[in-house]
Parts: sequence; structure tokens; C-alpha cells
Amino acid sequence: MTFKAPDSLSEQIARHLGQLIITGELKAGERIQEMRVASELNVSRGSVREAYLILERRYLIDILPRKGAVVSSMTPKHVRNVYEVNILLLTHLARVAANVWQEEDLVTFMQLVEEMEGFVSRNQVMEFFDATFEFARRAYKFADNPYLEDMLEDLQPLIRRTYYYAINTSREEMEVSMKMFRDLMQRLIARDADGAVKTLEAFGQHQCETVLACLRKNSAAA
Amino acid sequence: MTFKAPDSLSEQIARHLGQLIITGELKAGERIQEMRVASELNVSRGSVREAYLILERRYLIDILPRKGAVVSSMTPKHVRNVYEVNILLLTHLARVAANVWQEEDLVTFMQLVEEMEGFVSRNQVMEFFDATFEFARRAYKFADNPYLEDMLEDLQPLIRRTYYYAINTSREEMEVSMKMFRDLMQRLIARDADGAVKTLEAFGQHQCETVLACLRKNSAAA
Repeated sequence: MTFKAPDSLSEQIARHLGQLIITGELKAGERIQEMRVASELNVSRGSVREAYLILERRYLIDILPRKGAVVSSMTPKHVRNVYEVNILLLTHLARVAANVWQEEDLVTFMQLVEEMEGFVSRNQVMEFFDATFEFARRAYKFADNPYLEDMLEDLQPLIRRTYYYAINTSREEMEVSMKMFRDLMQRLIARDADGAVKTLEAFGQHQCETVLACLRKNSAAA
Repeated sequence: MTFKAPDSLSEQIARHLGQLIITGELKAGERIQEMRVASELNVSRGSVREAYLILERRYLIDILPRKGAVVSSMTPKHVRNVYEVNILLLTHLARVAANVWQEEDLVTFMQLVEEMEGFVSRNQVMEFFDATFEFARRAYKFADNPYLEDMLEDLQPLIRRTYYYAINTSREEMEVSMKMFRDLMQRLIARDADGAVKTLEAFGQHQCETVLACLRKNSAAA
């Protein structure tokens, strides 16, 4: 549906600011000043405003009247809400995938799972979690639904932000995730759609709980 | 999550152009020229570009490199895809609603259903279909999930566009829809979540089929 030129200026600015939000350099509630961004990056204020609309679409900022762009909040409610929709969309994708995959699709997923095992054994946390997103992306073709893809892609930066937040404190998370991915693969291969949905729900719930536990820990430490 | 000032200029431009797309005055594949819109509405090109990003988010246009803004396509595949995600999100909402509604919530929905019966008897087609969106909106509070709301709100203009397209050719559609709404209400009241989901799925499928039938008819007539 949307083919955005990879080098559109507003997209580049959005990705730059998005990365700062995901990694926590820009914190929830922080104001992002249009003029400052424009002068720091040497771009027009119009381009920054366009970038804000892209970031708003990705749930990373809120655009408030008279206040401008503010990094979106990450309260326990936000975390629960974003996982709720992400799980809803991903389980739908899994259900379709379990029913329609063809023999020739298996290789690409098997390879990816193998790569993931490698990341786990080498303790490459970020690479591992990037691969989990790649797993979903490769499954898009089964649903062949650009609206569903757009929604999942728009949620991705925010999910990444929660991941990033949680991964710093919990490394065993990767092992648990790997186990669930193995299980998910088995169920997909068996065309067990209900089982795949259940595994994915449990995976999502577990991740959500991990992030919530971090939030509690950090707010107790603060 | 997103509180957009109701009178933001780019939002106003987006709503104006969006209405032209929904009603079919701007047709699928048509290019919308930035400069022309800017001069006709006497606004800056920057504001038009911001409006484009809003319309892209609402799936009404595609922004293509070197071509600019183009009214999004409405092929049978697009119609099936958009109903698939809309049904997915709405049935989730219905499932939650069936489980959590409280006695005091009933009045507002009963009143709306009564209004809808009035629209049917007076043959007020657009008012009736506006009320179906209002029905979903009043149910947002049950899920209390701004991400889900945003996704449903972003899909709404496109669903409206398909409605608008189909309603011109099929008026008995309203009677069928009313029957399903009565059924949905009964199931929600009975806290029959599975039943509510099934009714809503049937409703969505039926609407989708109605739009597809119109597409076929019009393309045969062309």
C-alpha cells in the first residue's frame, strides 16, 4: 500500500528521533522542540513537522495543542494496551499462516530459527530480538494484507522500545523466548492453528509481564 | 493518546480532501496535486503535505515517490483486506464488551439502537450508517485501549468510503444491518461473547460481500 521512498527526508528524521526514543535517550514526557531539531539536523521546520506525524502514527510521540511534540508515556497501562493489540494482530497472522503455508515456505523460517539459536548461544540479545520481528515480517505474505502489515509495522517501534527497556535488566528472557519460538514453529508445521495462537499469546503475555516487572522495579528504585 | 486540536489546519485539509475521496468525487488512482490544493484552499504547501500524511495514515491516499499523493485503490482485494482487519478489531472489542459491560452502560446503547430503528423507518441511509460507527465508538470504553481506538478510527474513513460506494446501489442493506444490530445487542446483553463475535463477523462479511457485488456490477457496466 504505502511505498515510502527509503530516503524521504521526513522519514529519515522520524527514524533518527524514533531511535532516540526507543533507546531511552529521549524519555517519556520529554518535549521535542521543533526549532531545535530543525537547527541541529539542518532541516526545515516543515520537514520536522512531517516527521512528527510519522512518529505520532508510530505511537512514539503525542502531538499536543500548544505544547507540540512530546515523547509518549510508557505507563503499565500503555504497556498492557500495546501488547493487547500486538498479540491480537500477530495471533491472527499465525492462524492464517498455520492454515496456508506451503512446503517451500518452510526453509526460510527454519533458517531464521537456526540463526536465532546462534544468537542465543552467542548471547547476542539485540540481534535475537531483531530476528523475532523478522520472523513476523516473513509471515506477512501468508495474510497478504497490507492493512494488517501497516498496523504491525506501526506498532513495531513501540514494542521495540519496551523490549529495549526490559532487555537491559533481564537476559534470561532470550532463552524463554527461544523456547517459545521452537514451540511456535512446531505448531505451525503441524498446522495446529489454535496451538500456535495459544503459544503466541503466552509469549506476548510473558513479554508484557517482563516489561511490567521492569517498570515496577525501576519505579521502586526511583 | 492522540489529542489532535480539532481545528489544526492540516487536519482540516485532510478532512476536506478525505470527504471528496469518501464520496467518490476524487477517484481511485487520481493524482492530488500539492500546488493546486494549496492555491485552491489558500494554504501553504507544507500544510498540504502534512494533510497527506494524515490521509495516508487513514489509507485514503498513497504517497508515491516522484508521483506525490494518489487516491488509494479500491480493488476487490483492498475491500476484502480492509474488512478482514476491521472485523478482527471490532470482534475483539465486542468480546471484551460482552464480558465487562455494567448495568448503567445499557441505556446509551439501547437509545442508539432505537435511533437506528428510526433511521431505518424514515429511510435515512447515511444517518443510519453514521450511527453504526457511533455504536462502535461508544463501545471503546470497554476495551479502554487507545491503540485499538486509533486503529479503528484510522480505518473508519476507508470503511465509510466502501459504504458510500455500496449504499447508492443497495438500500435493503439497511434492513439487513438493523436485524444484525438487534441480534448483536441481544447477545451482548446475554454476555454471549462468542455469539456476539459470530454475529459481528457475519455482519462484516455481509457488508464486504455487498461492496464486492457493487464493484463487480460497476466493472461489468463499464
